[in-house]
Amino acid sequence: MKTGLESLKRITMIIGGIFILCFIMVCFFTTRLSAAEKMEKVGCWGIFELSLKGPDSGNPFLDVEFSAEFRYKNRIVELEGFYDGDGIYRARFMPDKEGIWTYKTKSNRAELDGKTGEFRCTAAAAGKHGPVRIRNTYHFAYADGTPYYPVGTTCYAWIHQGDKLEEQTLATLKGSPFNKIRMCVFPKHYVFNENEPQYYPFEKKSSGEWDFTRFNPEFFKHLEKRIGNLRDLGIEADIILFHPYDRWGFSKMDSETDDRYLHYIVARIAAYNNVWWSMANEYDLMKEKTMSDWDRFFQIIQESDPYQHLRSVHNCRGFYDHSKPWVTHCSIQHRDLQRAIEWRNKYRKPVINDECQYEGNIERDWGNISAGELVHRFWMGFTVGTYVGHGETYMHPEDILWWSKGGVLYGESPKRITFLRKIIENGPAEGISPMGQRIGGKEGEYYLFYLGLHQPVEKTFRLTKGNKYRAEIIDTWEMTVTPVEGTFESSFTIELPGKPYIVVRIRRVR
Amino acid sequence: MKTGLESLKRITMIIGGIFILCFIMVCFFTTRLSAAEKMEKVGCWGIFELSLKGPDSGNPFLDVEFSAEFRYKNRIVELEGFYDGDGIYRARFMPDKEGIWTYKTKSNRAELDGKTGEFRCTAAAAGKHGPVRIRNTYHFAYADGTPYYPVGTTCYAWIHQGDKLEEQTLATLKGSPFNKIRMCVFPKHYVFNENEPQYYPFEKKSSGEWDFTRFNPEFFKHLEKRIGNLRDLGIEADIILFHPYDRWGFSKMDSETDDRYLHYIVARIAAYNNVWWSMANEYDLMKEKTMSDWDRFFQIIQESDPYQHLRSVHNCRGFYDHSKPWVTHCSIQHRDLQRAIEWRNKYRKPVINDECQYEGNIERDWGNISAGELVHRFWMGFTVGTYVGHGETYMHPEDILWWSKGGVLYGESPKRITFLRKIIENGPAEGISPMGQRIGGKEGEYYLFYLGLHQPVEKTFRLTKGNKYRAEIIDTWEMTVTPVEGTFESSFTIELPGKPYIVVRIRRVR
Repeated sequence: MKTGLESLKRITMIIGGIFILCFIMVCFFTTRLSAAEKMEKVGCWGIFELSLKGPDSGNPFLDVEFSAEFRYKNRIVELEGFYDGDGIYRARFMPDKEGIWTYKTKSNRAELDGKTGEFRCTAAAAGKHGPVRIRNTYHFAYADGTPYYPVGTTCYAWIHQGDKLEEQTLATLKGSPFNKIRMCVFPKHYVFNENEPQYYPFEKKSSGEWDFTRFNPEFFKHLEKRIGNLRDLGIEADIILFHPYDRWGFSKMDSETDDRYLHYIVARIAAYNNVWWSMANEYDLMKEKTMSDWDRFFQIIQESDPYQHLRSVHNCRGFYDHSKPWVTHCSIQHRDLQRAIEWRNKYRKPVINDECQYEGNIERDWGNISAGELVHRFWMGFTVGTYVGHGETYMHPEDILWWSKGGVLYGESPKRITFLRKIIENGPAEGISPMGQRIGGKEGEYYLFYLGLHQPVEKTFRLTKGNKYRAEIIDTWEMTVTPVEGTFESSFTIELPGKPYIVVRIRRVR
Repeated sequence: MKTGLESLKRITMIIGGIFILCFIMVCFFTTRLSAAEKMEKVGCWGIFELSLKGPDSGNPFLDVEFSAEFRYKNRIVELEGFYDGDGIYRARFMPDKEGIWTYKTKSNRAELDGKTGEFRCTAAAAGKHGPVRIRNTYHFAYADGTPYYPVGTTCYAWIHQGDKLEEQTLATLKGSPFNKIRMCVFPKHYVFNENEPQYYPFEKKSSGEWDFTRFNPEFFKHLEKRIGNLRDLGIEADIILFHPYDRWGFSKMDSETDDRYLHYIVARIAAYNNVWWSMANEYDLMKEKTMSDWDRFFQIIQESDPYQHLRSVHNCRGFYDHSKPWVTHCSIQHRDLQRAIEWRNKYRKPVINDECQYEGNIERDWGNISAGELVHRFWMGFTVGTYVGHGETYMHPEDILWWSKGGVLYGESPKRITFLRKIIENGPAEGISPMGQRIGGKEGEYYLFYLGLHQPVEKTFRLTKGNKYRAEIIDTWEMTVTPVEGTFESSFTIELPGKPYIVVRIRRVR
């Protein structure tokens, strides 16, 4: 009997032990799971933000160093944090890889130093493709490989107009063809731009002068909000870091201030996937800056931006040397689109002619071309594998001109640009290569012959032999696509409507 | 009684002697008068033609030398005569001074040598102003000082189309704005130009090859007739001596033939007051000719033309060096009128952009711009003190395109060019001086501000102080001139219609 009882006890103990083990295991795993569930999640190319309380005495902008390392397996990304006022320090990070990322902070202040943590980067949200990169030397694609064709507009000072107008601008952008916007960080002083901004980038001393050692976090929070709004609309924010239109002194700061500002803004906004860096608008009008200042600004951005967002600088007259290694693409102001191929060949980088004059009716020549002429210039550029930007400057009783303040678009060009964008986005996956003035595409596969000012009633094409093609006549102004009956081979003649601004699109049939 | 009778006899004798003397004197003076009345009269800048019978055996074109000296007081003008077939030799002279001119021939043949004679040059016929000269460095005037503003067109081969079409061309020209025409001596072979001419410049050998040593006088008589027709319409004949569009061999003759041809044509047509010399059309496409050939052609013309008619040469791509001393003005083919001031400043001579592409609808880009674009280019050129030429190339069921064959004008540009010509002819007497891109006139007195593609709704002008001005808004397409109310001083703003292709004309009020 004793053996029987002992056996029973033993069995009970074993079963109990198993139960206990199971319980412990269950407890253990549920704890783990709940920790994992609790771990912060950020979609790929979203923003992970670490906020820490730190010192608010003295001048935190000058006195406190704060940075962070983010790590995925053996890969380390270093970035600068920033002081956001009220004793709050932040480090923002845009992960680009799904999985667990860990971080560790570094500071000259104990309360901000050595803080660690982790978060999970999940799949990108639907429709999110990451930051834009250079693709195929002359073109662009999002980080996930989706081609991106910049169709930009310009609203230099739109974020300095107050919420009502700014929200109207966002609503207009939503219904527009534009997937990039050029916008200044600093407020703008210029003709039609006499109003004061809501926020200033620096705090004021009691003397009333700017304290260039103290950034105004409200200013930057507002900037970030607007960049985020654009991101949510799928619009790239081409951030203009400096510009000459200034009555406040932000174009004439000393080098130390300039450089601190660059570090601060990179720390704040680089984690937004839709940021592009434009060192300046019309850099050559900023007489206080030298060429070595511009080179240094590029280098600061290049060194401190963990994501290597696109970088360029916009001229008034003389181009910056876009062949310098820190320039990712050409941002050009020039009215003559006939020269687009020349720039492409010279710099061997993507060419965006951001400002080929604007649709409008103001006195200045840069702001009074017709919609027809602007649309013409768009086609001149796009058919040779370069990109062109929009702007609008119609006189307005309250000086609300789109080019600077946003608001509403009045012009006739945007709907034609929408039409153009669809055509270009349906082009060859690798982007359009130029084949001559006003001719581009992909040899043997896809051709756009833009006739521009010319109005022939027929045209003979000599294309790669051995292929079959279909042709369409595109009226860029009327926005019609008319298929030409039949298929064609090597050399053939097509009848045309004998009016200007026609594109003949020819595609290979397989 | 004897004394009385003798006295009576003596008186009778004296009276009789007086009568005889009177009779002799009357006879003498009436003879003189009748000789003077019978003397040939030629209006100033008309043609005096001396015809002599001479040898018709051998090859008179090679064997017979024949020239003449025309003399007015101590001034001597030397010129070459020419063989006109059928044993007839001619020397043609255009006098430029009223009064008695004498001449004396020179020849290696006795029957043509040492012939003398005289004629009277009378006042120029009404409306005749003589050949066109350079005026005020960049402009033109007739010999009598009347300003001449070249408003040219192009009908390269119009004299090779048969009388019916040629007369239609003349009728069209009569109702057109054009006061200059570019036209080839030799027939033309090119697209739309497959027909044979009525006349050839040379005779044929029995072998069927050209005898380049024998000119065909009928060819040149026809040319002269047409130059005369143009002269009678007040149209300058811009004679194109060579051109590359050729299936007969006239573009590939040897140097000896080229040079003989130049001497022959100068001898024949230089006396026509409306002749201009264009060494070639698209000289740079004539691969058989070297730059030293072109220089030599210019020099032959310069040396042999007694009247120093205007001389230039027309390019396809690269310009001839118009700064060479024998070039009187620039004859340019270029589509970009923005560069007009550049050429004016470079060559310091009048600039005529003869071919900035033509109104039409053929396949080639040089022949299919719209009327609007051509008129725009005219204004681009004329407002900066340069000149622009017209051409028209609309497809035609019988290949009768104005640019080459003449006929009828179908386009929308000529009436706008008529309008432009009136504006320009009412400009400052010394011609328009450029004051910037699309701006020209005479400082303090007269201004044309051409807005081109730009469509501002207002514009501020800053003109010479102390003067009073009136302004007009000229719509170059609608051909309207709208005075702006009021008078203006130094700095003022004018409201504009906000559409492209407007000229603001501002004139001083005295």
